Amino acid sequence: MSRWADWLAAEAASREAAGLRRTLRPRPAEGATTDLAGNDYLGLSRDPAVVAAAAAAAQRWGAGAGASRLVTGTLELHAQLERELAAYAGQPAGLVFSTGYHANLAAVAALGGRDALVVSDAHVHASMVDAVRLSRAALEVVPHNDVDAVAAALDRAGDRRALVLVESVYSVLGDEAPLPALAAVVAEHDALLVVDEAHGLGVRGAGVVASLGLAGLPHVLVTATLSKALGSQGGAVLGPDAVVEHLVNRARPFIYDTGLAPPAAGAALEALRQVRARPELADTVRDRMADLAAALGVPPSAGAVLSVPMPSPRAAVAAQAAALAQGVTVGCFRPPSVPDGISRLRVTVGAGVPGADWDRAVDVLIAVVKEHG
Amino acid sequence: MSRWADWLAAEAASREAAGLRRTLRPRPAEGATTDLAGNDYLGLSRDPAVVAAAAAAAQRWGAGAGASRLVTGTLELHAQLERELAAYAGQPAGLVFSTGYHANLAAVAALGGRDALVVSDAHVHASMVDAVRLSRAALEVVPHNDVDAVAAALDRAGDRRALVLVESVYSVLGDEAPLPALAAVVAEHDALLVVDEAHGLGVRGAGVVASLGLAGLPHVLVTATLSKALGSQGGAVLGPDAVVEHLVNRARPFIYDTGLAPPAAGAALEALRQVRARPELADTVRDRMADLAAALGVPPSAGAVLSVPMPSPRAAVAAQAAALAQGVTVGCFRPPSVPDGISRLRVTVGAGVPGADWDRAVDVLIAVVKEHG
Ligand SMILES: Cc1ncc(COP(=O)(O)O)c(C=O)c1O
Ligand SMILES: Cc1ncc(COP(=O)(O)O)c(C=O)c1O
Repeated sequence: MSRWADWLAAEAASREAAGLRRTLRPRPAEGATTDLAGNDYLGLSRDPAVVAAAAAAAQRWGAGAGASRLVTGTLELHAQLERELAAYAGQPAGLVFSTGYHANLAAVAALGGRDALVVSDAHVHASMVDAVRLSRAALEVVPHNDVDAVAAALDRAGDRRALVLVESVYSVLGDEAPLPALAAVVAEHDALLVVDEAHGLGVRGAGVVASLGLAGLPHVLVTATLSKALGSQGGAVLGPDAVVEHLVNRARPFIYDTGLAPPAAGAALEALRQVRARPELADTVRDRMADLAAALGVPPSAGAVLSVPMPSPRAAVAAQAAALAQGVTVGCFRPPSVPDGISRLRVTVGAGVPGADWDRAVDVLIAVVKEHG
Repeated sequence: MSRWADWLAAEAASREAAGLRRTLRPRPAEGATTDLAGNDYLGLSRDPAVVAAAAAAAQRWGAGAGASRLVTGTLELHAQLERELAAYAGQPAGLVFSTGYHANLAAVAALGGRDALVVSDAHVHASMVDAVRLSRAALEVVPHNDVDAVAAALDRAGDRRALVLVESVYSVLGDEAPLPALAAVVAEHDALLVVDEAHGLGVRGAGVVASLGLAGLPHVLVTATLSKALGSQGGAVLGPDAVVEHLVNRARPFIYDTGLAPPAAGAALEALRQVRARPELADTVRDRMADLAAALGVPPSAGAVLSVPMPSPRAAVAAQAAALAQGVTVGCFRPPSVPDGISRLRVTVGAGVPGADWDRAVDVLIAVVKEHG
């Protein structure tokens, strides 16, 4: 056996022994189950107008952008999407990426650098964590939602330009960042607050940043994804013109990557218009969230993600399996992939789930959590 | 002014002073120019069957995958694409990503680590360079296409598992890696050769690795993009089952990213079938490359990218502008974005350019290179 084969086998064996082996389970086009695990929060990925827009964009612009954005891969469609995203979020400018992951890598890596300090909330997404490593900036990780810790870290920044990384609505726990307090501390310290609105934009209208009146401030930058509430694929950075200009010139995951495919850009643009025209979609998420949280006896979340703590990893897995056996797919998080060591179900609320299916799924979850919780 | 505003302004001013400021120029749907700068090498991005497949996939599966691959974002469509890509490239297994950039980040970061050594050709793509930083592996950059230097670096690997990073056809210069010799050296040293076929797959049939009989070897791993010859968006890793299994479990840019959008997956799958059914597409690229290289008096390249050295950065810019004024878009590379300090035009050959446009473009380029070359 070669060194590589040995190493891969040893890694696989240790995953197996720890019960952590993960496998892909391809799903058919017509879901046999009710999906309360995905992030298509407003059901727009299957909205007829959004689907038609994806098809129309393929017809008009082709299946791919054909080149990187600075060569010939910027379409008028991208520019339109950038304008409408920025306008909706109340920001001066926008830049679209081929994934939300790219948006975070690009923003943090291009704004960071050896001479910068990054202060990161302990719960930020993997793409932010990877971005910090790419940036070569010094890193201070602070406890979750701890504004004083952020202030203390910024006190230590000295002359360095500092970035503070948070999510508006956190992806696993579904809780909200204390954005007004964070923005104030960041302003005092002449730093920059980067807010990942992956789970905020659309679900919370124009985003949590905008709803709090923090959009358009020079020290608040938003990153977002087009792949969750907007039902498509791609990412965006929304903020000051000078930041967008900087990213166009310096962000490697922007410059050296093919432009977002036209069908994804077209679908995201139509989804954005649907979100604006149909505020009832976000209302449905909020109402269902309130009902579900009450039914399961946990506090409602700030977005579409409900975290249901379970007594043990085993109980969480058993509950997930019991729900699935009754046709309801939910997420299950256990150590080491929970930020706080507590096993839980992650249940997402989707406005696109038909009413009868939703009611049935709630009943299933009540029973399952009662038995295993 | 704030520290951030100051810094952004200073960065912008220094780009401006160096003549390096780049801006996006959105293009309309109907190209006014003949595009010899993009990477839609076989013209498949606008192929009617490919466009129809993108639309059909949106209809059948939705505009987005709706979740990350390990949650509910793996579709049977992804599995089908992975099977057909792997089969075409002669590899046991395949894994699809939402960009080619993600594929490189994922492969290198998940296989690397503090205890690994990466030996990288000096000309590899930005995504490979970023991947190495994410991996935390020790890095040795070796001179371009220097097999002895690779061997010497591997001699110093000691007990560490070692990865060697190359491209089959290089993206800027269009030249080919000495893959048989590299594969032999890598095998001798019990290392792993990672070959980025971004500019090889499709243009060179099933890829350069397959055409040389190196596909399916346990020490040769292929990464690829779906956004160039396949005219769509996305990336892939093609190789041993154990590597794919490892990436599914360990690669952060795979695990924490929404699955590739169905229209992109559907388009890439149809494009792959077109490539297999219509070998004349790749033949057209090869024939046009031979003609163009002869007409411009430079050696033909191994793929679809022709590098035309120019006497100075100024001459390169002037030649690009002169071509554009006559309706032909080509790329222009100057220091600091050329690997060897030599300014050049980068002209890509596309099978999708109609014959009359192609002939005209060649005449324009002959004149322009004569005047500025
Ligand atoms: C908080 C957060 N940021 C960024 C991303 C990455 O977005 P994308 O899937 O569009 O790459 C995700 C999820 O995937 C996320 O949950
Ligand atoms: C050699 C090489 N590898 C990887 C990539 C990244 O592929 P993608 O644009 O699909 O992200 C590119 C170009 O963009 C490339 O030229």
